[in-house]
Amino acid sequence: MVELYHHFIYEGVLFQMIKNATIDKQVTHKTIRAFKDQTLTEEQLTTLIEVASHTSSSMFMQQFSILHITDEQKRMSIRQISGQKYVGTNGDLFIFVVDLHRNQSIRHQLGKDDGRLHQTDIFLQGVEDTVLAVQNMVNAAESMGLGAVILGSVNNNPKALLEVLRLPKMTFPILGLQVGIADQKPQLKPRLPLDAIFFENDYHEINVSDLKEYDEIVQTYYDLRDSNRRIDSFTKQVSSKKLGAKKTLRDELLEVLYNQGLCLK
Amino acid sequence: MVELYHHFIYEGVLFQMIKNATIDKQVTHKTIRAFKDQTLTEEQLTTLIEVASHTSSSMFMQQFSILHITDEQKRMSIRQISGQKYVGTNGDLFIFVVDLHRNQSIRHQLGKDDGRLHQTDIFLQGVEDTVLAVQNMVNAAESMGLGAVILGSVNNNPKALLEVLRLPKMTFPILGLQVGIADQKPQLKPRLPLDAIFFENDYHEINVSDLKEYDEIVQTYYDLRDSNRRIDSFTKQVSSKKLGAKKTLRDELLEVLYNQGLCLK
Repeated sequence: MVELYHHFIYEGVLFQMIKNATIDKQVTHKTIRAFKDQTLTEEQLTTLIEVASHTSSSMFMQQFSILHITDEQKRMSIRQISGQKYVGTNGDLFIFVVDLHRNQSIRHQLGKDDGRLHQTDIFLQGVEDTVLAVQNMVNAAESMGLGAVILGSVNNNPKALLEVLRLPKMTFPILGLQVGIADQKPQLKPRLPLDAIFFENDYHEINVSDLKEYDEIVQTYYDLRDSNRRIDSFTKQVSSKKLGAKKTLRDELLEVLYNQGLCLK
Repeated sequence: MVELYHHFIYEGVLFQMIKNATIDKQVTHKTIRAFKDQTLTEEQLTTLIEVASHTSSSMFMQQFSILHITDEQKRMSIRQISGQKYVGTNGDLFIFVVDLHRNQSIRHQLGKDDGRLHQTDIFLQGVEDTVLAVQNMVNAAESMGLGAVILGSVNNNPKALLEVLRLPKMTFPILGLQVGIADQKPQLKPRLPLDAIFFENDYHEINVSDLKEYDEIVQTYYDLRDSNRRIDSFTKQVSSKKLGAKKTLRDELLEVLYNQGLCLK
């Protein structure tokens, strides 16, 4: 069932890879965007949350919260914000929230001021706590044979998302995560060659010509979102509208962070 | 060897947990800060990097790089910046870099402008790509029986870190990760009760009184960094100097991001 990759080539040398159940899932990770019409069992759900709670945390401040979105109206609103038709349909939908509000509230109840909570420093620590927990939960889900998709698209309209979730100041819903029983079998998406992302001591510049072979490999990948069409090469995607100048509501992210009291200085 | 936790209590109800090799490691995760004097094998090292490369990535833009710091001078400098004596001693040291420079360079080589790369939107996507990869690598390391510590402390002096690493603009070294063979056996650090971090649809405020039992549990935990002393309760730590107002070089993080061309608007 699972394809196994036990070796790979780096700088022209063939390497063997360590093999175990966790790593097999990790090196064959594929984002799932179609789920069966079945929700997680209570056992699966609580295991996933328990795993997330055990993620490493900056200074032990545990600055994230998870919303499990089961309300149909909310799921529909989040689907509209994301612009992705699979969001909030089948599968369980979670929103991961950078949560500096909880600790602010604890400090206030204990007669303390906001301290460093408005600093970029602490915001980034909260972001780290939260995003680490997302990946931990993805790995747990995949270890159970479930599929998952991390949803950056929930912030395609950050002000609308905050309104839907009715979140207090000092929080920021950074990512969604949808988990369920896979109803598709995507191909393994080819990643940048390791020598483009991994460096001994010193960072190296990249030449587009070094990515020629990778570009060709990427073009052999079929995106299940449009299965009739091969995708563009990597460098073409990078130079395309994905990163191109345009006006989008995502431009409001910094304003939203400020409004939330985050990342002020 | 590994303690197993197959059940837990949430809102007064006992839940069974799913059990497999991945999850067993995740729910018994302990940060390791003392390593044996032994570096990773080539097989371990390349497996870890291969796993990191397969992490989910925003819009497939793969906006992170990993520096493997083996240069003794650099390891010492990073140890001094972090202020932690175990940093860059035993074990392998990695710096995870939010890397918008690679795609900027690709765009320039293909005759394109910077597009959205200076937006907070794209910076946050790069942060997400990078931090997801950190946790993926932690899980892979732990699955091999290795120990790991995620190092936020590498940014205790963000300007000095950039200088040591000689990184170009449009990059930001967000976290360190040290991996090796554990030379200590810490206790499992108790996490916030699930009903404090996990909500159905609507965010809930927390009362310090709800954390009384948790506060007591936390005080039973011995921190190996000072094994003679129990640690403070959670709410006491939150209301302490950890988050308290003070001047530190970490206040320069936002300025460093701006100087790097990141998160400008």
